[in-house]
Amino acid sequence: MNTVFKSANCISLLTDFGLEDAYVGQMKAVILSRNPTAQIIDLCHALPCQDIQAAALMLHASWSFFPAGTVHVTVVDPGVGTCRHILVALSAEQLFIAPDNGILFPLIEEQISTQIRILKNPTLFATKSSSTFHGRDIMAPAAARLASGFPFAEVGPVVEPAACVRLHLSKPLITENRIQGQILSSDHFGNLRTNIREADLQCLAPLAHLRVSICGKQLSISKTYAETQPGALLALLDSAGYLEIAVNQGKATKLLACTVGETVAVISI
Amino acid sequence: MNTVFKSANCISLLTDFGLEDAYVGQMKAVILSRNPTAQIIDLCHALPCQDIQAAALMLHASWSFFPAGTVHVTVVDPGVGTCRHILVALSAEQLFIAPDNGILFPLIEEQISTQIRILKNPTLFATKSSSTFHGRDIMAPAAARLASGFPFAEVGPVVEPAACVRLHLSKPLITENRIQGQILSSDHFGNLRTNIREADLQCLAPLAHLRVSICGKQLSISKTYAETQPGALLALLDSAGYLEIAVNQGKATKLLACTVGETVAVISI
Amino acid sequence: MNTVFKSANCISLLTDFGLEDAYVGQMKAVILSRNPTAQIIDLCHALPCQDIQAAALMLHASWSFFPAGTVHVTVVDPGVGTCRHILVALSAEQLFIAPDNGILFPLIEEQISTQIRILKNPTLFATKSSSTFHGRDIMAPAAARLASGFPFAEVGPVVEPAACVRLHLSKPLITENRIQGQILSSDHFGNLRTNIREADLQCLAPLAHLRVSICGKQLSISKTYAETQPGALLALLDSAGYLEIAVNQGKATKLLACTVGETVAVISI
Repeated sequence: MNTVFKSANCISLLTDFGLEDAYVGQMKAVILSRNPTAQIIDLCHALPCQDIQAAALMLHASWSFFPAGTVHVTVVDPGVGTCRHILVALSAEQLFIAPDNGILFPLIEEQISTQIRILKNPTLFATKSSSTFHGRDIMAPAAARLASGFPFAEVGPVVEPAACVRLHLSKPLITENRIQGQILSSDHFGNLRTNIREADLQCLAPLAHLRVSICGKQLSISKTYAETQPGALLALLDSAGYLEIAVNQGKATKLLACTVGETVAVISI
Repeated sequence: MNTVFKSANCISLLTDFGLEDAYVGQMKAVILSRNPTAQIIDLCHALPCQDIQAAALMLHASWSFFPAGTVHVTVVDPGVGTCRHILVALSAEQLFIAPDNGILFPLIEEQISTQIRILKNPTLFATKSSSTFHGRDIMAPAAARLASGFPFAEVGPVVEPAACVRLHLSKPLITENRIQGQILSSDHFGNLRTNIREADLQCLAPLAHLRVSICGKQLSISKTYAETQPGALLALLDSAGYLEIAVNQGKATKLLACTVGETVAVISI
Repeated sequence: MNTVFKSANCISLLTDFGLEDAYVGQMKAVILSRNPTAQIIDLCHALPCQDIQAAALMLHASWSFFPAGTVHVTVVDPGVGTCRHILVALSAEQLFIAPDNGILFPLIEEQISTQIRILKNPTLFATKSSSTFHGRDIMAPAAARLASGFPFAEVGPVVEPAACVRLHLSKPLITENRIQGQILSSDHFGNLRTNIREADLQCLAPLAHLRVSICGKQLSISKTYAETQPGALLALLDSAGYLEIAVNQGKATKLLACTVGETVAVISI
């Protein structure tokens, strides 16, 4: 059964463009030129340059907070101007526009995206398109039109989910009484996100019976930052459901001086 | 007499979240999910992490520029997930949502906020709330609902202003012919804000009769940056009414190499 | 013949304010106080402090993407509070508000702006204006009113384009078989923009017959980043029509360690 997309005229933007240049502003200008009443939300523009996995994970952690009827535009696009496709995926009453480079893979893997089309209909593009900025010249105008009611079925041919580019996501190794994962990224607060999810932990044991080890430290799992002393290291579940290593009123990135890829283990006691 | 809040459906956001992560975007997504036509304004997301005084001062310097009927959400929240309260204050026809950690103290101290309630009504919260991100799961949904007409009187029980957490704000020492203050913060232009206000200066003498001393330099008070030579140090009143130390077309932070807390004195001549 | 401006109630903001402070947020608050339904677009707030040429070039490269009826506010204003004028220019069905310091010169030079007025009508200003923040106290309120239908003809007296402050723009030296230009700026991706435009190149020879030299390297002109190996240096036309030096999935700023002002030559082979 095919869901029909009902636009809420809300468009989210997620890119690696930064905010130093006019790139994001130009995308918004293009959107408003075609759809003057669109609500445009910046999900984030600080993805590490060309980091497709970071884009995929941030989109996957965030889409469910948006209204049904949102059109998401995600642009991390090292292959811009080549023959790589641009996809439009219908997922849980929202539309996702992104290059076919793995950004949509977590949604496809979890069968959230089931109907996917290749963005081919040239009536959706800017009249004159550059070969270096399809975010502005192809994806933004298409988003503007889809958000104002252009039918999903007319964006281009259907593509099978299995035919889209896959992403090799770093996943933890889970055994009967141990999870071995790693640090995935750090945030503005110096918190370290691991690749271990809440569901992984629950398979092992109740949270109170788990111990986290990182860089030679052993930590139980707290519920809040303030449970520990200011300056103390702690482990907790972050707001996206990942196991996080943090410091109450401080920065785990500074205290531990560990980097992305560092091993994190969880055992049941 | 109780003012009635009439929403203008404008929501301001002020946080220490930075823009590197999806946190601000997720708050906006949550707002639009409950209130699709809200006008959302980013006041600032670059407050120093966990700096409650910076949040309090920026909110206090900025709220009066907003339309009557604005709902302000200020999130600097090291106590997230603990038993600290979240406040909703009605002040000068605007609503202010913030943790009870001192953020609203300048508004309370100046009796701008007189009606304050504790945010307790669970119908205003997200169905599933994390214990690390109440900005997204409690404050954003409440703001969305209040901005779309939910009655202030129903957010939760009244709390007396005097019962809210106080903030020890750095204030200048004022004597008959001298003010001794200090550097409070610096801005993007390298301007140094002091904790001395225009009204403090006016009590001492007309501006033309005052001399400012900082790091061994004596300065009169200019009206504009361009009154001095490019590269010259100057003192003037900034756009929030604080005495500021600046450099015309340069950065006072570089020229003086002084830091927050440095003494600034003003004498009448 | 005088074009009549028909507002689309879209306001763009371009400043050197950064996002660390409340400056941009206060400008938006002022706009919404006067014009609650305005669509406000951040073009960019990361212009180098006091860099008028950067403002002029970014505005010139971006305005055409905005809807007819947009009001652009550009604030790089080292002369704030002095007797420098603030201009309002009508150009191609859009309005441009900026200090008279050269920001509008590229639009004037190319005769895009033909009707220019001095912003003098005090009914457009904030009741109480600071002498350090005309972006908030004069330009934002004027933009809000112009975007909601206030007539352009009433902003103040006409000024001749030739009487406005000119900007000395760095331009390439073009001879029969050689263009000598220079690096103008770098972007978030570490791409280096030169001051050589697509039209300059086309006067010399078809792109396939050109060779670019910079820092001792010779480059042909690619169409996309991905045409070369990851890590390889390349030249291509950027999304604003300038010749750009880039690295596929890397940063030209790092690979070349060259700075703004570095010579770039193009020859026909």
